[in-house]
Amino acid sequence: MSRLIALLTDYGYADTYVAQVKAVLLRLCPTCEVLDLTHGVPPQRVRSGAYLLASATPYLPDGTIVIAVVDPGVGTARRAVSVQGLRHTYFAPDNGLLCLALRDDPPQKAVVLDNPRYHLPEVSATFHGRDLFAPCAAHLANGVPLEQLGTAIPPDTLQQLPDIEPEFTSDAIRCRPLHTDHFGNVVFNLRQEAFRKWLGEETASVRVWLKPAGSESIELPLMRTFGEVGWGEPLAYWGSNGYLEVAVNGGSAAQRFVITDDAVLTLICG
Amino acid sequence: MSRLIALLTDYGYADTYVAQVKAVLLRLCPTCEVLDLTHGVPPQRVRSGAYLLASATPYLPDGTIVIAVVDPGVGTARRAVSVQGLRHTYFAPDNGLLCLALRDDPPQKAVVLDNPRYHLPEVSATFHGRDLFAPCAAHLANGVPLEQLGTAIPPDTLQQLPDIEPEFTSDAIRCRPLHTDHFGNVVFNLRQEAFRKWLGEETASVRVWLKPAGSESIELPLMRTFGEVGWGEPLAYWGSNGYLEVAVNGGSAAQRFVITDDAVLTLICG
Amino acid sequence: MSRLIALLTDYGYADTYVAQVKAVLLRLCPTCEVLDLTHGVPPQRVRSGAYLLASATPYLPDGTIVIAVVDPGVGTARRAVSVQGLRHTYFAPDNGLLCLALRDDPPQKAVVLDNPRYHLPEVSATFHGRDLFAPCAAHLANGVPLEQLGTAIPPDTLQQLPDIEPEFTSDAIRCRPLHTDHFGNVVFNLRQEAFRKWLGEETASVRVWLKPAGSESIELPLMRTFGEVGWGEPLAYWGSNGYLEVAVNGGSAAQRFVITDDAVLTLICG
Repeated sequence: MSRLIALLTDYGYADTYVAQVKAVLLRLCPTCEVLDLTHGVPPQRVRSGAYLLASATPYLPDGTIVIAVVDPGVGTARRAVSVQGLRHTYFAPDNGLLCLALRDDPPQKAVVLDNPRYHLPEVSATFHGRDLFAPCAAHLANGVPLEQLGTAIPPDTLQQLPDIEPEFTSDAIRCRPLHTDHFGNVVFNLRQEAFRKWLGEETASVRVWLKPAGSESIELPLMRTFGEVGWGEPLAYWGSNGYLEVAVNGGSAAQRFVITDDAVLTLICG
Repeated sequence: MSRLIALLTDYGYADTYVAQVKAVLLRLCPTCEVLDLTHGVPPQRVRSGAYLLASATPYLPDGTIVIAVVDPGVGTARRAVSVQGLRHTYFAPDNGLLCLALRDDPPQKAVVLDNPRYHLPEVSATFHGRDLFAPCAAHLANGVPLEQLGTAIPPDTLQQLPDIEPEFTSDAIRCRPLHTDHFGNVVFNLRQEAFRKWLGEETASVRVWLKPAGSESIELPLMRTFGEVGWGEPLAYWGSNGYLEVAVNGGSAAQRFVITDDAVLTLICG
Repeated sequence: MSRLIALLTDYGYADTYVAQVKAVLLRLCPTCEVLDLTHGVPPQRVRSGAYLLASATPYLPDGTIVIAVVDPGVGTARRAVSVQGLRHTYFAPDNGLLCLALRDDPPQKAVVLDNPRYHLPEVSATFHGRDLFAPCAAHLANGVPLEQLGTAIPPDTLQQLPDIEPEFTSDAIRCRPLHTDHFGNVVFNLRQEAFRKWLGEETASVRVWLKPAGSESIELPLMRTFGEVGWGEPLAYWGSNGYLEVAVNGGSAAQRFVITDDAVLTLICG
């Protein structure tokens, strides 16, 4: 029976880093099937990686093995972990990269990958995707129990990311950017379900203000689709992954507004 | 038996949009095999997508299921369709994206994908690739007949693209750009077989003039390979997909000539 | 039984060139499994391609069929070859692209791919990946012996690349750039095992000097990992593929130093 292994990294497409990881998987587990989630996470941007991972994992078949590597701390003391959720099993550096995916797939158990028996014979200082995560994942795919891959740790000790949730007050929500996509749309850290819960029975109108770093706030219309504003006009809308996004119809919000990590999107009720 | 599903989109490689489509396919049809045609169609450029699709479909094994999504009109009234050709079955927005592929693979029947039973339970306003085209294609791969996916429509009502064919007169052919490739070569809308038919028994020499938008016409030599002109010199030649292309030996025609949609390539006989 | 076919090209991701190659493989050998090594080799940079190929092939399962195409001479008299190494079988233009991979996988026999029976019916002047290498590789995967694909040639007549090995003198090693990776790290042509052999029992310290083209030499610390220098500081280190690399912690060495082909990295002992 083939086992699906999904990969997300910041290795890019210009080198063979991804192929080396896949080659290790295929050598150790010839029957596995590999699915690329993306390798275009901006280099070392854990926050963007966390969002991208969580955007894809809900659609994967149950029992998928997920390897996620965005790892600015490789070679330092950061832990390398495997986490078994209700649906999938994850391999990643313990730096917060998994925190959004695990919100939808609660962790049941976790281990530090400290059993060298399941690593490649030589583990490099800079490429744990190939030398450590891939072989551990391949052994799990082959039937090795999670417990044998390393020392158990309490799942609640896994790293979180700062500012990953918006700030809710009685009359406003302050959101932060998570990711800028290929089309220049900027995803903020507010999910529609959290928004609806906060809004409750309230039917008052909601106003949306974008404050780019270093410039004035502007108000954006909150719409259902791009077509509801004119060509070249900005809007806020609920994106296809359930998060609030800012876009420009026929253009790029990222280029128009220069939205850095310090940007704030505020929803005001009333 | 595995069924091949080929994908072409403008989703790019920086996000997980493509992976979400594949995850839906694999969940609904675990035995399918997915082939990426490309996800690098310039965002929302239907014309470029139509060319790219038609460049690959003739090489696919018979019976491939093709999903093509370049969809500036997503969320508007444009139809979502499936078209059965002589060789392959296509899923796409009805915006002209299929018109060049279907020229080589004549449509036998077509449906509008309006049966919600074969969509995901929630169809977003902006991501029909995942929520509508992928599940419909997966159900077809599983054996659901095309007719059940929606309402039959006459194939001759499918959208065409403007200026998709060159203008033939008795002594000249006026061509328009279709696509600029990774090497900076610009593909025009003239196929070698149409050119030969037009030329007939005529053995007079053919002169090729390029008119970039906003600058003077220049004459290009019509050659068989790059090596027949000097390093850094421009040429016209019949590209590997059978279309007339403009290139610069060792350089980029797109950079040299700034070839926009308004550029014209004229072949003059005699 | 499925056969693994690995692909490396400079075709990029914006077109369907790669997909056309895969479509030919899947049509002729439906049971093959295709693995992308990379298609992001800088256009026509054989040297970079040679490095990238050699970075991945050691990790592939034994018996992989490798197709590598970076082919500035396509359509000229350069030979198209297949080479059987101890571990893998390679298909490539004979322009030096294989030379680093074959250093680790010594060639046992080689042929020129001059038997048209195993090519596509029409071979274009510019796309031998699709029309010649792919069908030959698919036929080999189907069991056709290497000898039938063309005329045998002595493996020692295969092209090499200039300056592919560093210059070793008694007290110094002069290295040249091979490749700049996605993170802006620059790989030089010195492998750690060659360095150790040269160093021998010597325990004297080694100093590393980088001479970018057109600017002054600077000394770099030779470290084990990025974290051993400050944020934004440059370093030399042994990369995960076993070669000496130059990087900037948290930045891009390629951007900082403008390292062209003429750059030299010198290691001085003592």
